[in-house]
Amino acid sequence: LQSRLPAVGTTIFTRMSTLAAEHGAVNLGQGFPDFDCEAKLVDMVSEAMRAGHNQYPMMPGVPALREAIAQKIAALYGRAYDAASEITVTSGATEALTTAILCCVHPGDEVIVIEPAYDSYLPAIALAGGVPVTVSMEVGPQGYFVPWDKVSAAVGARTRLIIINSPHNPTGSILRRADIDALADIVRGSNVLILSDEVYEHMVYDGAPHESLCRHAELAARSFVVSSFGKTYHVTGWKVGYVAAPAALSAEFRKVHQYNVFTVNTPMQHGLANYMADPAPYLDLPAFYQRKRDLFRDGLRGSRFELLPADGTYFQCVRYEAISTATETAFAEWLTSDIKVAAIPVSAFYQQGKESGIVRFCFAKQDETLQLALERLARI
Amino acid sequence: LQSRLPAVGTTIFTRMSTLAAEHGAVNLGQGFPDFDCEAKLVDMVSEAMRAGHNQYPMMPGVPALREAIAQKIAALYGRAYDAASEITVTSGATEALTTAILCCVHPGDEVIVIEPAYDSYLPAIALAGGVPVTVSMEVGPQGYFVPWDKVSAAVGARTRLIIINSPHNPTGSILRRADIDALADIVRGSNVLILSDEVYEHMVYDGAPHESLCRHAELAARSFVVSSFGKTYHVTGWKVGYVAAPAALSAEFRKVHQYNVFTVNTPMQHGLANYMADPAPYLDLPAFYQRKRDLFRDGLRGSRFELLPADGTYFQCVRYEAISTATETAFAEWLTSDIKVAAIPVSAFYQQGKESGIVRFCFAKQDETLQLALERLARI
Ligand SMILES: CSCCC(=O)C(=O)O
Ligand SMILES: CSCCC(=O)C(=O)O
Repeated sequence: LQSRLPAVGTTIFTRMSTLAAEHGAVNLGQGFPDFDCEAKLVDMVSEAMRAGHNQYPMMPGVPALREAIAQKIAALYGRAYDAASEITVTSGATEALTTAILCCVHPGDEVIVIEPAYDSYLPAIALAGGVPVTVSMEVGPQGYFVPWDKVSAAVGARTRLIIINSPHNPTGSILRRADIDALADIVRGSNVLILSDEVYEHMVYDGAPHESLCRHAELAARSFVVSSFGKTYHVTGWKVGYVAAPAALSAEFRKVHQYNVFTVNTPMQHGLANYMADPAPYLDLPAFYQRKRDLFRDGLRGSRFELLPADGTYFQCVRYEAISTATETAFAEWLTSDIKVAAIPVSAFYQQGKESGIVRFCFAKQDETLQLALERLARI
Repeated sequence: LQSRLPAVGTTIFTRMSTLAAEHGAVNLGQGFPDFDCEAKLVDMVSEAMRAGHNQYPMMPGVPALREAIAQKIAALYGRAYDAASEITVTSGATEALTTAILCCVHPGDEVIVIEPAYDSYLPAIALAGGVPVTVSMEVGPQGYFVPWDKVSAAVGARTRLIIINSPHNPTGSILRRADIDALADIVRGSNVLILSDEVYEHMVYDGAPHESLCRHAELAARSFVVSSFGKTYHVTGWKVGYVAAPAALSAEFRKVHQYNVFTVNTPMQHGLANYMADPAPYLDLPAFYQRKRDLFRDGLRGSRFELLPADGTYFQCVRYEAISTATETAFAEWLTSDIKVAAIPVSAFYQQGKESGIVRFCFAKQDETLQLALERLARI
């Protein structure tokens, strides 16, 4: 059997979580909280099951959930998506990303991927028969940024799609208004589509706004905007996400979605629709995670790690050149086995494994977990 | 935007369910029960959520569920799959089917599809860049059967995969031992793989065994065997399925699964693992549905419909030539709007819309629902 994805092995997240378990390390690797969602949310899903919402929902999702998503987007980003034709509920953001790529990338089409990049983009492009064109982020005094001149130079006649991600995993950087304007300048007048991965939309700090593409009429008209409930509501295992896109793009998305997974867990959708009636959980999230970010950064300040800016997501990147010249993978493994704190090498987010001497910690953890990790890291 | 799936429209299931709702028709179209699952199963999922099983599970599925699936297969079909490397939990059977196709079909590879065929197979083959080669089932005194000589003639150097489905949707026919032997003869010595859609495995009637490919060592060694909990446990909206395949095939399957959906709803997996400890729900299913089948068949016996055999699934196909010469779609629409009983035209399961004068009813309904439908159908 000839592989369709010969380059794919076990994900770095699984490998580091396994290593962390083996060594009894505090797991700041894979991005998931070590605390639970609100009991109220669980109760709402239980109620939906007891009320008999256990059979196929409509293919694009339970109407009440699509409506709640459209209302949230309208309230936060001022754009009115039609819940009937422009919002589709997906099996997590991963399915949304892969389905979006499969529905618009034809064999031979080029897709621009900005590295470091979440690890699902490249395999999905490969399955579609697309050709990835990578552009590397650069690191300046303000941390990681996208060199838009290089993105512009990478766009050509075969470019079908540009994938962006803000707040950005793994770097914790965010796109600002000037970035969005630069992107708009690049695609204006072309047929290039945008896939915008915004799963960390509610984790932007220091009062900065989340520059969702939904805010930008010109770009939204050619964009698939992807988000998810997993990160926002502390239920990464529930696998409910969504895509917002203009009707013509949503129609193509749904054709693939329908035959990829058909539809998404019914009672979870009903529970989430109810829970969304109260905006507090996502409105309170920036403050909730900013406090954890600050706790973690403050704890590392006396250490030999150099802190990179952390403007969004629940990830903190650190440079370790004062500690070691090891590769990122070797250093992350050593941190896990010897210091007993697991991290993720940022090199895993590059197709060619580019080394920058930077690893990523996840601070979506209870304060005690973060304290324990900080004590261990302080010993270095 | 050029479509990747230009032939795809709204599924027949959605169209007929919508029409049924508009006309207040009894919906015997789309295949789902109008009764609920056991309260115990709902409680087990609620307990899993309350116990905090809400974050990412392992990529191939919760170990306890994979173990329970492997044990069930061993008990029923006598084949020992390794839960660690040969069982993968999926977002319903649809994801399992599409992922299996995407992981082994390369652009230009041929895939043999036996028609009438479930509507997801052809779009999934198209996404993979594969070339479908269709073989039509034939209808004899014993009902629909697969002409294996024609399947054999369709196999060539480019054949990568044969998709089979037993118990068969929409015809309600089942493959018997002689069919499996014929299939084994066809693929012996070749590199052809098999994708076996067995989602109705627990609905085989009149004491016949379900000839799962898991029973047949020679075929199992080259097969992806797909099943699901939706039909078996009356929870079509939960979207939890699985694939059993030898380690080498499972490894390729998981590469695609990992980047298609990554993983499947955690609390549902835990709840289902617990529920599977008791085999009664699936062991009792044949008797449960055989009674409904008989009730429905007996009710139609005095009518002008000609009953085809219904050896498996929860579908009953009928010939309507004594009533009308309309196309199947027109007849199903008339049944829905005028007689107020929705059915599915079997022509929707053929790429070229082949007309056989046959429609499909779903009898996975409460007895009262079936009685009401029978009263209405008796008026014709
Ligand atoms: C899908 S497992 C990885 C979780 C995650 O998003 C991350 O750690 O980057
Ligand atoms: C996925 S909706 C269709 C349900 C079904 O399997 C059928 O009616 O054939």
